[in-house]
Amino acid sequence: MTQTAFPSWPDSAPKLIEVAAGRAPADTVIRQGRWVNVHTREVLDGHDIAIVAGRIAYVGPDASYCTGPETEVIEANGRFMVPGLCDAHMHIESGMLTPAEFARAVIPHGTTSMFTDPHEIANVLGLDGVRMMHDEALMQPVNIFTQMPSCAPSAPGLETTGYEITAEDVAEAMTWPGIIGLGEMMNFPGVANADPKMLAEIAATQRAGKTVGGHYASPDLGPDFAAYVAGGPADDHEGTCEADAIARVRQGMRSMMRLGSAWYDVESQITAVTEKGLDPRNFILCTDDCHSGTLVHDGHMNRVVRHAIACGCDPVIALQMATINTATHFGLERELGSITPGRRADVILTSDLRELPIELVIARGQIVAENGSITVECPHYDWPESATGTVHLGHALSAGDFELKAPEGANSVTANVIGVVENQAPTKALKAELPVVEGLVEGSGEVCQIALVERHQATGGVTNAFVSGFGYQGSMAMASTVAHDSHHMIVVGTDREQMALAANRLAEVGGGITLFRDGEELALVELPIAGLMSSSPATEVAAKAQKMVEAMEACGCKLNNAYMQHSLLALVVIPELRISDLGLVDVRTFKKIPVLEPIS
Amino acid sequence: MTQTAFPSWPDSAPKLIEVAAGRAPADTVIRQGRWVNVHTREVLDGHDIAIVAGRIAYVGPDASYCTGPETEVIEANGRFMVPGLCDAHMHIESGMLTPAEFARAVIPHGTTSMFTDPHEIANVLGLDGVRMMHDEALMQPVNIFTQMPSCAPSAPGLETTGYEITAEDVAEAMTWPGIIGLGEMMNFPGVANADPKMLAEIAATQRAGKTVGGHYASPDLGPDFAAYVAGGPADDHEGTCEADAIARVRQGMRSMMRLGSAWYDVESQITAVTEKGLDPRNFILCTDDCHSGTLVHDGHMNRVVRHAIACGCDPVIALQMATINTATHFGLERELGSITPGRRADVILTSDLRELPIELVIARGQIVAENGSITVECPHYDWPESATGTVHLGHALSAGDFELKAPEGANSVTANVIGVVENQAPTKALKAELPVVEGLVEGSGEVCQIALVERHQATGGVTNAFVSGFGYQGSMAMASTVAHDSHHMIVVGTDREQMALAANRLAEVGGGITLFRDGEELALVELPIAGLMSSSPATEVAAKAQKMVEAMEACGCKLNNAYMQHSLLALVVIPELRISDLGLVDVRTFKKIPVLEPIS
Repeated sequence: MTQTAFPSWPDSAPKLIEVAAGRAPADTVIRQGRWVNVHTREVLDGHDIAIVAGRIAYVGPDASYCTGPETEVIEANGRFMVPGLCDAHMHIESGMLTPAEFARAVIPHGTTSMFTDPHEIANVLGLDGVRMMHDEALMQPVNIFTQMPSCAPSAPGLETTGYEITAEDVAEAMTWPGIIGLGEMMNFPGVANADPKMLAEIAATQRAGKTVGGHYASPDLGPDFAAYVAGGPADDHEGTCEADAIARVRQGMRSMMRLGSAWYDVESQITAVTEKGLDPRNFILCTDDCHSGTLVHDGHMNRVVRHAIACGCDPVIALQMATINTATHFGLERELGSITPGRRADVILTSDLRELPIELVIARGQIVAENGSITVECPHYDWPESATGTVHLGHALSAGDFELKAPEGANSVTANVIGVVENQAPTKALKAELPVVEGLVEGSGEVCQIALVERHQATGGVTNAFVSGFGYQGSMAMASTVAHDSHHMIVVGTDREQMALAANRLAEVGGGITLFRDGEELALVELPIAGLMSSSPATEVAAKAQKMVEAMEACGCKLNNAYMQHSLLALVVIPELRISDLGLVDVRTFKKIPVLEPIS
Repeated sequence: MTQTAFPSWPDSAPKLIEVAAGRAPADTVIRQGRWVNVHTREVLDGHDIAIVAGRIAYVGPDASYCTGPETEVIEANGRFMVPGLCDAHMHIESGMLTPAEFARAVIPHGTTSMFTDPHEIANVLGLDGVRMMHDEALMQPVNIFTQMPSCAPSAPGLETTGYEITAEDVAEAMTWPGIIGLGEMMNFPGVANADPKMLAEIAATQRAGKTVGGHYASPDLGPDFAAYVAGGPADDHEGTCEADAIARVRQGMRSMMRLGSAWYDVESQITAVTEKGLDPRNFILCTDDCHSGTLVHDGHMNRVVRHAIACGCDPVIALQMATINTATHFGLERELGSITPGRRADVILTSDLRELPIELVIARGQIVAENGSITVECPHYDWPESATGTVHLGHALSAGDFELKAPEGANSVTANVIGVVENQAPTKALKAELPVVEGLVEGSGEVCQIALVERHQATGGVTNAFVSGFGYQGSMAMASTVAHDSHHMIVVGTDREQMALAANRLAEVGGGITLFRDGEELALVELPIAGLMSSSPATEVAAKAQKMVEAMEACGCKLNNAYMQHSLLALVVIPELRISDLGLVDVRTFKKIPVLEPIS
C-alpha cells in the first residue's frame, strides 16, 4: 500500500457527489458534534459529517439523508470535531524510531499529518536513505509527507558524511509521490552568498511548485537575513523571540513556532498574535524534534496546541496553526487541514477544546485510535542490509586508538577543550592544562576524552580530543552513533579501555547508544537502522533511553539533556568548538584548530 | 514578449540576493513609504523597497545600502505602499475591449493582476479563441492569468455555439503558461448530477494542481449545493447575501464578492466579516463584469476596495481581499499579492487608504501609470482573419426573413412573449394577443419583434419571436452580436425592414451593436473581434456605447441597463423565457415552446 494508491479527490468525486446528493450511503457518519471550522474560525454546534472513500462528502446539520443500513455511525454526542493535527516540520529520526513506529506513537495523540525532513538518514545513506524513509512514510495510515533534505553535509569541508545530497538528488526527489518540498535550508550563509549549489536546490523545488523550508539560525536581521529571504525559503522554525517571528512574517515567510522535547519557542513568539494582534494565518506550530519519551509521556501536536492555548492563544486560532495554516503553506488546503467536503477525513473527537483530550482519531475515514490506544497497523518497511549495517569500523578498536601523544618530553600540555554548557546547544572553546603520563595526554578533573570514530567508510579514523562538563567519574565510556549531523560515532570517556569496549559494542549491534563502566555495559539503546532508529515501539525505546539517562547519572553526569549534549558534540555548524572526522573545529571561524597548543 | 519570458523567482534569485545583501545596486528604490503589510495586517511607517529584475529584493527601514548611482529612486514621501490590486474573477469581453485595451484602461486604477475567464470568445471561436486571448494577455505589462472556460455551450441541447469546449480542450489548456485554473463551472446541476464531462474538466484542472472556479447560482443550500461542493469547485462569486457567503466559506470554498457594473454583491455579503467576525482570509473581491464606461468613469478594483471600506470593512482587510487572499487562492502567494521579497514588484502609491487615490502604479518594477495616466504600451495581438470575420450570415437578410406567419385564416393569435423586467436578469414568460395583418403576426403596443440570427455556421437561420418591455416606438431596430452566451445576433425591432438593415450592417462591420431608425443608423459600436470586442481604447468604446444608450432612449426605451437587457435575451440558463437559434426556450422547464399558441 502506498499513498499514491489513496484515491485523489477527482478519483473519488463521483462517490463524494453521490453521497452528498443523497443518492448513495456514506461509509461513515459522525453524528451531532461541534464542528470546529478552521476556515471561518467558528465552532458550530449540531453538525454531522458524512464520509466515503476516506474523504469527507458532506458536513451539515443532518446527514441522515446519506446514512444507509451499512453506514457506520459514530456518535459525537456534542463533542468537538477537530481536524487531525499537522506537524509542519519535524525529524522522525529524533524519536529514534522508524516512520512506522513514530506514526504509531503519535496517532493516539491526534497527529494525522506530518511534514518530515529525514536529514539524519540522508547523512548516513544519502538519497537511498531518504527514499526508504519516504517509502515507509507512504505505507502509514496517516499522511506523512517528506521534505527532501537540503544540506548533507551540513558543513562542507569540515566533516565527511556517509553520502552527500546534490542538487540533482533534489531535482530527482521532487518527482517522488510523497515529496512535499525542500527540507530546512540550513546553509544560510550559503544562500546569503548565492552559493550555486544551494540556489540550484531551491530552484529545483520552486520549479516543481513545492515549498522551500527555511532555517535561519541567527539573531541578525540585517542584510544577511534580507539576502536569505530573497533566496526563497518560505518558512522558518529557528525564531526564538517575538521579534524573530514578526520579522519573518512581515517578509512573507511563515513563522513555524516549535515546542519539541528540548525546544520551547512558542511562548516567546506567540505574543506576536496574542499581544501584537498580527493576522494569525502565517503562524504555524511544529515540534521539530521529539524524543520517544516525550511521545510516550507528554504527547505530540496535542501537547503543542495545548501549550499555545495555555500561552493565551484562542483555542480555534491555535488549532488553525496546527491544521489549515499548515495545509495552506504546503499547497494542501484542499486536501487536508479542515473538516470540509473533498478533504481527507482526518477528524479528532475531543470533549474539551483547551485541554484537548484525544478521545477518537479518524484518519482517511478510518478509526485509527481510541482513548489513547492505536487501533490500526502501521506497516514496517523491509529495511535492506544497506540500512541495517551502517557501522563500518576499519578494525576492532583498542585502547591505543584513543591515545593522544604529548610532544616529546612534555610533562603537561595546554589543550583546546570542548566546554559543554548546561541547557545550551552552543559549546565553549576552553583551554585546560592537562597532565602527561608516559607520553600520553590524560584527562583530569572535569576534563575527559572525546573521540570521533569514523563509521561510514571504514577508514579506521579516530579523532581524539577533550571535553569538559559531563562530570563523569570512575572508569567509564559512553558511545553513540547518533552524532549530528554526519552521524559518525562519538565516544566520551574517562578510560580508553572502556571507550574501545563501547565503540566495538556499537559496531556489534549495528549502532545505537551504549555506556560501559568497569567493563560492564550499564545501558544500551539499539538503533540498528542507519545507527539512528529502532523499529521497536516508542515505549520500549523510551524505556531504554531512560535507562541510559540513569546510567549517565550513575557515572556522575548531572546535566539536563545529557544525551542530547553528547550527540550534538560533532555538530560543526553551532559554535564554539566541535569535533569532526577531520579534527577539532572552531565554529566561530569555521577553521580546524589543533587539540594541543604548541609548546612555546 | 510573453509572460513566460518574465524571469521566475529562481531565475532572478542570484540578482535578488546580491541586492538584498548590498553587493549590487537595485534597479529601483522606493523611499520612505508606509508599508501596507498584508501578511501581518499592519501598516508600517518609514520603509523602503528595493527592486531588481522586476521583483522585490528588499523591504526594510533603509535601502540606501542597495542604492547605486544608476538606481532610480522614487520618493514615497510617507504615502502608503500598497500591493497591486488583483481582480480574482472577471470577463474581459464584458468591457467590449481586447485584453490589451482592458489592461490599458485598468492599470491607472491600480489593477496589476487579473484572473480572466474568456468564456464569451470560447463560445464563438472555441479553444483557438481562448488561446488568442491568453496570448494577448501574456503580452501585457501586468499579470493577466487565464481561467480556461468550462461551459461552452452553457446550455447543451438548447443552443448551438460556434464551438464547444471539451474535457480534452481543458486538459490541453492546462499545459499553457498563462492558464491558472478552470473558469466558473456554471453547469451546477451537471456537477450535482455527476455529469462525466463536467467532472472530467474538474479532474483535469485538479490534477494539474490548478484552481477550479465555481458558479453556483441558486439560493438552495441543500443537497444540490452539498453535491456541488463535493464536486470540487474552490470558489464562488454567485453569492448574493450574507448566508451565501458564510455557507461557501464554511464548506471550504472561497467567497468571491463582486462589484461589477451591474453586480452589487459586496455590501450584502461583507457583513460576514464586518459583523459576524469570520476569519477574513477566505473572502475575496472581484468585478466579474465591467463595462468600458465603468472603467473610464468609476474605476476598477480600486472602486471595489473603496466600496468594501465604505461598507465598514477595515481598509487593510479590504486590501487583503484584493491582494494576498486572491494570490493564495490561486497558488500564487509567493509570486504576487504582497510587497515582500521575491514577489513581482507590483506596488501602488496612494496618500489615502480609504479613498484610495491611485497616484503611482508600478508593475513588475516598472512605472506603468502615474496620476491616472498610463505610461507604458499595452501591445496588441495580431488578431487573425478567423477572429475578425465571425459574422457569417447565410445570405443578406431582408424583411421577409423576419416574418412570422399566422395560422391560415387567423385574425389574431396568442403569442408567448419574452417579458423584460426592469433591473433584473430573469425575464417573465408572458402571453399576448397579437394582431394578424396580411397573414403575418405583428407586434403591438409594448410588444415588438425579436430575432435570433444565426451567425456562426452561416446557416441562414433566423428564429423569430416577440419581446415586451423595451418601450420602442416608431420604425426602428437594434442588433447586437453580443448575445450571451452563444453570441449569435439578437435583433429587436418594431419594423422588419429596419431589422434587416441592422443585421446586415453588423455583418458588414464584422459585429458589434447598431441601431437603425427610419433607415438611418443612429449609433454603432463596432466590435470586430469575435463580434465581442474592439481594439480601440476604452474611452472611445465607452463614448460609442453611451451614444448607443442615447439612441435607444431616443427610440423610447426607458430601461436602466437597456443594452444589457438586450444582450442577455438569448441566455438560455436564466429563467423564464429566452430565445436561441433552436427556438423559444422556457428556462423553467429547459424545454422549447412554440412562439404562437395553437388555436383551440
